[in-house]
Amino acid sequence: MKIAVYPGSFDPLTYGHLDVVERASKLVDELIVAVAKNPMKDPIFTLEERMEMVREAMAHIKNVRVDKLEGLLVEYAKKTGAEAIIRGLRAVSDFEYEFQMALTNRKLNDQVETVFLVTSENYSYLSSTMIREIARLKGDISPFVPDEIVRRVKEKVRNEDRNSPYPGGGIRD
Amino acid sequence: MKIAVYPGSFDPLTYGHLDVVERASKLVDELIVAVAKNPMKDPIFTLEERMEMVREAMAHIKNVRVDKLEGLLVEYAKKTGAEAIIRGLRAVSDFEYEFQMALTNRKLNDQVETVFLVTSENYSYLSSTMIREIARLKGDISPFVPDEIVRRVKEKVRNEDRNSPYPGGGIRD
Amino acid sequence: MKIAVYPGSFDPLTYGHLDVVERASKLVDELIVAVAKNPMKDPIFTLEERMEMVREAMAHIKNVRVDKLEGLLVEYAKKTGAEAIIRGLRAVSDFEYEFQMALTNRKLNDQVETVFLVTSENYSYLSSTMIREIARLKGDISPFVPDEIVRRVKEKVRNEDRNSPYPGGGIRD
Amino acid sequence: MKIAVYPGSFDPLTYGHLDVVERASKLVDELIVAVAKNPMKDPIFTLEERMEMVREAMAHIKNVRVDKLEGLLVEYAKKTGAEAIIRGLRAVSDFEYEFQMALTNRKLNDQVETVFLVTSENYSYLSSTMIREIARLKGDISPFVPDEIVRRVKEKVRNEDRNSPYPGGGIRD
Amino acid sequence: MKIAVYPGSFDPLTYGHLDVVERASKLVDELIVAVAKNPMKDPIFTLEERMEMVREAMAHIKNVRVDKLEGLLVEYAKKTGAEAIIRGLRAVSDFEYEFQMALTNRKLNDQVETVFLVTSENYSYLSSTMIREIARLKGDISPFVPDEIVRRVKEKVRNEDRNSPYPGGGIRD
Amino acid sequence: MKIAVYPGSFDPLTYGHLDVVERASKLVDELIVAVAKNPMKDPIFTLEERMEMVREAMAHIKNVRVDKLEGLLVEYAKKTGAEAIIRGLRAVSDFEYEFQMALTNRKLNDQVETVFLVTSENYSYLSSTMIREIARLKGDISPFVPDEIVRRVKEKVRNEDRNSPYPGGGIRD
Repeated sequence: MKIAVYPGSFDPLTYGHLDVVERASKLVDELIVAVAKNPMKDPIFTLEERMEMVREAMAHIKNVRVDKLEGLLVEYAKKTGAEAIIRGLRAVSDFEYEFQMALTNRKLNDQVETVFLVTSENYSYLSSTMIREIARLKGDISPFVPDEIVRRVKEKVRNEDRNSPYPGGGIRD
Repeated sequence: MKIAVYPGSFDPLTYGHLDVVERASKLVDELIVAVAKNPMKDPIFTLEERMEMVREAMAHIKNVRVDKLEGLLVEYAKKTGAEAIIRGLRAVSDFEYEFQMALTNRKLNDQVETVFLVTSENYSYLSSTMIREIARLKGDISPFVPDEIVRRVKEKVRNEDRNSPYPGGGIRD
Repeated sequence: MKIAVYPGSFDPLTYGHLDVVERASKLVDELIVAVAKNPMKDPIFTLEERMEMVREAMAHIKNVRVDKLEGLLVEYAKKTGAEAIIRGLRAVSDFEYEFQMALTNRKLNDQVETVFLVTSENYSYLSSTMIREIARLKGDISPFVPDEIVRRVKEKVRNEDRNSPYPGGGIRD
Repeated sequence: MKIAVYPGSFDPLTYGHLDVVERASKLVDELIVAVAKNPMKDPIFTLEERMEMVREAMAHIKNVRVDKLEGLLVEYAKKTGAEAIIRGLRAVSDFEYEFQMALTNRKLNDQVETVFLVTSENYSYLSSTMIREIARLKGDISPFVPDEIVRRVKEKVRNEDRNSPYPGGGIRD
Repeated sequence: MKIAVYPGSFDPLTYGHLDVVERASKLVDELIVAVAKNPMKDPIFTLEERMEMVREAMAHIKNVRVDKLEGLLVEYAKKTGAEAIIRGLRAVSDFEYEFQMALTNRKLNDQVETVFLVTSENYSYLSSTMIREIARLKGDISPFVPDEIVRRVKEKVRNEDRNSPYPGGGIRD
Repeated sequence: MKIAVYPGSFDPLTYGHLDVVERASKLVDELIVAVAKNPMKDPIFTLEERMEMVREAMAHIKNVRVDKLEGLLVEYAKKTGAEAIIRGLRAVSDFEYEFQMALTNRKLNDQVETVFLVTSENYSYLSSTMIREIARLKGDISPFVPDEIVRRVKEKVRNEDRNSPYPGGGIRD
């Protein structure tokens, strides 16, 4: 593979993202980490902040370039000449959603292949959503994200609206 | 089976819905396609528009009748004399949710059986949610829905509020 | 096990919750039922109402204590001296989410073990979310919750805003 | 539906099979219960014995006919004029295998639709394999199969080779 | 919990088993590790060897007793006064099978509760079956089992029939 | 990626295998299709026959080389200088098993990454096992495998022992 794209929201970046990028960067000549302009829900960081975090955390990997992602992912891949979209898999629920995305994207552009890597078992349970919830409940997120990001998240959460819509600690029943 | 109900939001109708209706219509004397008054989230089309789309797309199937669905599905089935509720299955995550719904509905009315058909593998990855996202990102939805619906969706999206809450292209991480 | 915590939103309490509490109470000296201050979404009852419902429904179980849960669950467990968090499993989708939560909580505090019990097959399909939807559509929820709670839910729903965001009867497509 | 086939090994027949047949028989004019000549593995009963058990247990359902199944299922359906194959779903693992079978059978004969019903939650965990194991370990199988079948299974197991290849009580690790 | 049983084949014991036993032993007064007399398939070690391995590996845990398991698990639990059966969960496929077992065992004896713990993510992918395959292909199993067991497995495999039925390296397609 | 290995049994090769190889071959300089010496169970073809089938079917893809696979896959990858192992994903059950394999292989050799591609939805339900069963029941396998392989499979099955252990048409219950 010459060029591949690794898209994400990175709100915030976790050790799981880093793990996938490190693995993927060995398989391609150039890896573009594409930060989605508008994350799906309940964002903590702006696009600029997320791009900055990603740039810092991946500065040690030579063949990684950070960019912003607007519009359709397959259009972005075409525009940048990427042959593949990289995604990390952690669990069955990931798989189902990613499978659906991969087949949909293939229908939209069959020149771009989606390629899945397995995240390290050490980060298999990590999600940005859960990290945001822990941070909002004043829990310690240092096992899950790099130190610089711990600092940034703490600061953000301190300034956040107290009437956050998801303060429930993730308890479902 | 004499009468069966196929409920849905159809926001918009996809080739996957059509596939299930074509299969189901061969197994019953009359198939009622019941369009839910209030779809779960983030709707593009009004009830009237959705009913119109369904009617047009299914005009070629003789024993299909389109109706609107208000209130509990099992009450609707009872009122219309339906013996069965038809649902299409695509994936494991579908299955879990549908299973829960089917057992709940059976508890509410054990005279109505839920019957599952398997969607064609060609449409196994299709979801209305993903189609709405692609349309909002100006992608081409013609592989997924009939031509007349492509036209309607494009028009809707053009007029939609730009500050849509889900413009992220479906990227989860 | 000496002390264990069973956390939940209980909005409303169901026969499934009761089933888990009855099973768990036999395995521990003291079981704390911890009612989450802020349920995840779309609540019907206030914290006080939910605590009252739980207290009434569990009055017959000697070693159960009802408390409110604020902040991180693992912090609460530490503060109360609980060795274990009890969770009920019903389905695969439960399992995935609970698995992720259990591993995350272990990373936050490895002195508290998450322990899973299997809900009775009679309640395997029950969820508070579905019960709220049925109630809002004026369906009969008496197969799913104790009588006193049927009364409370009916009253609540009667007074609820008609423009509820989820009146669609749970139909996904 | 006029004619449908419900195929199985019925080694032995369980309350779960009966449940599916009772539900299915209400949706079709004639239901053929087709007993597979060669069950997949580790059989207790001969084809004749299995057909006899099925006939007895289903004698009370008027529109059920019991037959033996040899060769390809879709060929059998074609020969008997069946429009549909009935299958019961219990769990996610069922679903995956059944899904694969349904799509394969559709490719072999697209005139026969596979139709899934949900087994009662009371029998959601039942499998003939587990019942055979319990019987071989001298456990009580009366909660799982009709009385007449309890008697037959006991007798069979008493005469069975003690060096059965699966005496381990189903423990996997 | 006073007494609980952790049943298994331990052919061979892995770090995953050890992890579950260490966690469980903190929650009960006495933990009985019950070694199944007849493992399901393709065994390397005799019952005596497996009991010896388990005893050695768990010698450092005070409240663990090793015993052999014959006959039905729930009968064994009753005989030994165990209130609970302990099982470790690693993945969705585990969950499905274990769920079925737990509900079946509950039907056989509702005085014994099945209790699930989550295996450490570090061992989430470990299975005795895969370890046997790696050993037979002369791979290094030291990342997966204690040193003493590496030695024993190597010795066994050296003496094993070369015409093993599963020498394929676990490749499925 | 420079060199990657696609391992399999290919008993027989299906359109699904071909699909994965065509996709993978675009992402690497050289793709080695490694035919496992000893398939897991119930083989129809010898290693030589399987290698011949694979060679014929993939003759049109320039950068594919067919080889035989003995011993541990990660050792083979190391020996041939492959950076990646290619696997196709079709369904959740695939995913679970493949995930376990990928993490195990990574522990054995962390220089080789497992890379997953999504099989075309048109072949998502295909398995060599099911094709062997259909062939043994004299069904038409031409929708699933190339013509030349239809011929070979028919011939093999004609000569096969009639007392095959799996003649049941894949019916599980």
